[in-house]
Amino acid sequence: MIKVTVWNEYVHEIAEEEVGKVYPEGIHGAIASFLRTNEDMEVRTATLKGGELTEELLNDTDVILWWGHMAHNEVPDELAEKIRARVNEGMGFIALHSAHHSKPFKKLMGTSCNLRWSENNQHERVWNVCPSHPITRGIGEFIDIPQDEMYGEYFDIPAPDELLFITWHKSGEVFRSGCTFKRGNGKIFYFQPGHETYPIFYNEAVQKVLTNAVRWAAPVDVDPEFVTCKHTASLEEL
Amino acid sequence: MIKVTVWNEYVHEIAEEEVGKVYPEGIHGAIASFLRTNEDMEVRTATLKGGELTEELLNDTDVILWWGHMAHNEVPDELAEKIRARVNEGMGFIALHSAHHSKPFKKLMGTSCNLRWSENNQHERVWNVCPSHPITRGIGEFIDIPQDEMYGEYFDIPAPDELLFITWHKSGEVFRSGCTFKRGNGKIFYFQPGHETYPIFYNEAVQKVLTNAVRWAAPVDVDPEFVTCKHTASLEEL
Amino acid sequence: MIKVTVWNEYVHEIAEEEVGKVYPEGIHGAIASFLRTNEDMEVRTATLKGGELTEELLNDTDVILWWGHMAHNEVPDELAEKIRARVNEGMGFIALHSAHHSKPFKKLMGTSCNLRWSENNQHERVWNVCPSHPITRGIGEFIDIPQDEMYGEYFDIPAPDELLFITWHKSGEVFRSGCTFKRGNGKIFYFQPGHETYPIFYNEAVQKVLTNAVRWAAPVDVDPEFVTCKHTASLEEL
Amino acid sequence: MIKVTVWNEYVHEIAEEEVGKVYPEGIHGAIASFLRTNEDMEVRTATLKGGELTEELLNDTDVILWWGHMAHNEVPDELAEKIRARVNEGMGFIALHSAHHSKPFKKLMGTSCNLRWSENNQHERVWNVCPSHPITRGIGEFIDIPQDEMYGEYFDIPAPDELLFITWHKSGEVFRSGCTFKRGNGKIFYFQPGHETYPIFYNEAVQKVLTNAVRWAAPVDVDPEFVTCKHTASLEEL
Repeated sequence: MIKVTVWNEYVHEIAEEEVGKVYPEGIHGAIASFLRTNEDMEVRTATLKGGELTEELLNDTDVILWWGHMAHNEVPDELAEKIRARVNEGMGFIALHSAHHSKPFKKLMGTSCNLRWSENNQHERVWNVCPSHPITRGIGEFIDIPQDEMYGEYFDIPAPDELLFITWHKSGEVFRSGCTFKRGNGKIFYFQPGHETYPIFYNEAVQKVLTNAVRWAAPVDVDPEFVTCKHTASLEEL
Repeated sequence: MIKVTVWNEYVHEIAEEEVGKVYPEGIHGAIASFLRTNEDMEVRTATLKGGELTEELLNDTDVILWWGHMAHNEVPDELAEKIRARVNEGMGFIALHSAHHSKPFKKLMGTSCNLRWSENNQHERVWNVCPSHPITRGIGEFIDIPQDEMYGEYFDIPAPDELLFITWHKSGEVFRSGCTFKRGNGKIFYFQPGHETYPIFYNEAVQKVLTNAVRWAAPVDVDPEFVTCKHTASLEEL
Repeated sequence: MIKVTVWNEYVHEIAEEEVGKVYPEGIHGAIASFLRTNEDMEVRTATLKGGELTEELLNDTDVILWWGHMAHNEVPDELAEKIRARVNEGMGFIALHSAHHSKPFKKLMGTSCNLRWSENNQHERVWNVCPSHPITRGIGEFIDIPQDEMYGEYFDIPAPDELLFITWHKSGEVFRSGCTFKRGNGKIFYFQPGHETYPIFYNEAVQKVLTNAVRWAAPVDVDPEFVTCKHTASLEEL
Repeated sequence: MIKVTVWNEYVHEIAEEEVGKVYPEGIHGAIASFLRTNEDMEVRTATLKGGELTEELLNDTDVILWWGHMAHNEVPDELAEKIRARVNEGMGFIALHSAHHSKPFKKLMGTSCNLRWSENNQHERVWNVCPSHPITRGIGEFIDIPQDEMYGEYFDIPAPDELLFITWHKSGEVFRSGCTFKRGNGKIFYFQPGHETYPIFYNEAVQKVLTNAVRWAAPVDVDPEFVTCKHTASLEEL
C-alpha cells in the first residue's frame, strides 16, 4: 500500500469563482479522487488553510504531490526543509505545474527554477520522449491539451536524470515538461500541465501519468541510515 | 583573462601546527601560487578572518575555488545564498575535499552531501573514467596519492552530469571523486583529494586537474537575463 | 508473467573440469534455477550448442540474460543484429560479466567496451551508489565477493544513464560495475561480477540484483511502432 | 590547429537543380567556407564521388562534419566502422541533419535513429536549453529558421549526455535537435537544422553553433591506448 498525500495550497479555488467552478473540491480533491481508484494507494489530502500538513502526516507519507502558486511564501521555511529532508530519506515528491517555484522544489533543485510564461491559453502538445519509462507506460506518442498556461524554456533546473516529456506550445515555445530527479533515497517528478483555470486534472492521460508517477516514486525499502554521514573506523580489515 | 578567487576558511593552518607546516601560506596560498603561473588567470584569495569575500569581489569573480571544513557554519547564510545565485548567473564553483559540506555546495546540490569517512591516512588512487573531458586533459589513467583522509560511498549528491574520477581506497571503499554539475549559467566541479594534513595541493597532477577545472568552469558569455523569469506576451506572433 | 530467457555460451563448463564442478548445470542452469523461484517469471534457457536461441524464442522473450566469453565470435552477426533490434523494440537485455565483449552488447553500446582485466582472484566489494533504484532494492551498502576476476577502468562504454554499482578491487582498481542504459523501447543492465571459476551466481545478493534487474528490464507495453520512422503528412492541422 | 574534414555525399546538389542553386559549391563547400575564416582550423573536404575520404585523411582528421542523405548506403561498411573506431580513439564527429541515418552515426548510437519527418517546409525555432555549454556560446535564447524539413519525436537515440537544443515546429512537433555524446576518447554532436533545399548553412547563428562545436569536439591529447583492453599483471603491488 502506497501512502499518498496530495498537497494543494487551495487558494485560487476559493478566491476565484472561475477556478472554483472547475475544481469544486479543490485541485487536491480532483487528484485524490482519481488516485483513490487504485487499490494499491491510500490517499490523504492537506492544504494551507485546513487539514494541514503536519509533521506526523509527512512522516507517514510515501509519496507527496504538490500544487502551489500564489501562496508559495506561506509555506514555512522549516516545513520546506523538512520536506527536502524527507525526500532525501526516501519520500517521493511530485511537483505539479506552478510548483516549479515552490519552496521544497527549489530547495531540492538548487537553482532558480525560473521559466518563461504567458497566460495565452493556447493549445499544447506534450510529447513522450522516453517510451520505456514506467511513468510513460500506456501514454502513447503525445497528450493534447486544448488550453493551458504556457511554460517555456529556458527552464532553470539541473539537467534532469531522465527527460520524459517535451511540450510544444502553439505560440512558439517548447518546455521540458516531464523530468525525473533522484535525491538521496528519494525520487522526484516534475510535470508541467495543470493550470488552475482549466480541467487538466480530469484529462485521462494526465491522470495516467500521475498514477504511474506515484508508483514510480514510491520508496523502495531503503534504510534512512543510507544517506547519513558515517565514520567507518569499524569496517573490518580487508 | 579568467578572474579566479581562491577561498579558504584558513583555520586549521593557524590552529594546528602540523597543518601550518604543510601549508605555511595557507591552503589558499598554495592553490593561488600554482594557478598564478597561468597567464590567462588573475588570482585573488579570500578567507574567513582576513581578506574577506566581499560582495564586490564575488561579483568580480569568474571562478571560485572553495576549501572549508571546521568553520562551515561561520559562513553567513546570506553569503552562501549569494554564491548560489552567482553560480546560477554564470560563476564557476570548484568545491574541494571537505567543501562537500559547505553551505554553498549543499545549497547547489539540494541533498545532504553526506558521505562515509575515516582519517585512516591510507593510499588512494584516483581513476580517470572520462578521458575526453577538458578537466582530465593530460592526466593519464590515474593519480596516486600516498596519504589522504578516506571519503567513501554512499556520497549523497545528485547524479553528476559527468563522472570524471573514481577514487579507490586501500581500506576497501570507493568514491565518486570528480563530478561536474551545471546549474543555470554556471558550472560546478567537485574534487575529493585535499585533506589539510597532507601536501596534496603540491601534487602536480592535482594541480593540473584544478588548472583544467578553472578553465572549464570559466563562464561563457551568457546574459544573466537568461535565467530570469520572463513573461513573453511580447513574443512576435508566428 | 515475465518471459525470461537465460543465454549462456556453455563452453567453459564442458571444456574445463574446474568450471564444470562449480556449475554442473551450466551458468545458465544456475541462473534459471533461482529466477524460477519467482512466480512472476517464466524462465527458459538457450546455449550455443544445444537448445539454440531461435528467432521464435527471441521474439517470445521479454528479458534476456547473456553470459558469454570465449565463444563470442560463434554468435552469428545476424543473430546479434536481431537481438539489438529486439532491444530497440522493447526487450530487456542483461549483460553479465564478460558479456561486455559480446556482439549484441557492443552493437548496443557503439564503443569498444574494452576494459582492464586480470585473473588475480582477489577480494572485490561492489558498492551500491544508487539506493533509490529498483535494481538495488534490498541490497544494502555493498556486496562482498571473496574472489573474482578483476575488471577495472577505463571501461570504454557510453556514460551510463544510471550508475548503480562501483566495484572496489583489493589490487587497486575500481570499476563501474552496475550500469543501466535505455535504447529505444528497451532497457539494458550490465553487471560485472560473475567469472566462471567462482560460485558467484549462488551469492544471495547477486541473485537479488539479477531478480530485481529482470523486473526492471521487463518491457512496459510500448507499441513497437513507436521507434519506427514516420512520415507525418497525416497529422491533423493545428 | 584543429584539422577539420567536412564530408558530404554531394549528390543532391548535382542531381537537383534547386539544390545546386542553393549550394553551388556543395553543402561541404558552404560549410568549409565559413569554418576557414577561423585561424585555429585547417579545413579539408571529402565527398562520395571525388576527393574521397581516404584512410590517410581520416587518420589525419581531428573533427569530421558529416552530411549525407540519399546515398547513405554507398558509404562502405568498412569505412563506417573505421570512422566509429576513430571516434573511439578521439576524433570528433558532428552529424548534420539527415546524417541521423548515416552508417557511422547509427553504429555510434546503437539504436535505429528513426524519427518523425515531413517535408512541410515550415517555420522552426531552435531553443537553447543549455546556456553554459561551449557549443551554445553566443547563441542567445533561440535560432529562428524560416523553412526546414520537419524532424520530430520520437527520435530513437540514446539519452544524450547533454541536451543543448530543442526545436519547435509550427506544425506541432518538437525535436531534441542539439545533442552531445561521448564515446571512448571522442566527442559527438548531432545538430538537426540543415535540409538541402534551404540556405540554412548560411545562417550566422547556425555557423556559430558549428564553429563552437568543432572547437568543443576537437580531441584533447588522450593516448589512444586509453581505450584498449589491458591485462594488468604488471601493476605494482599496493
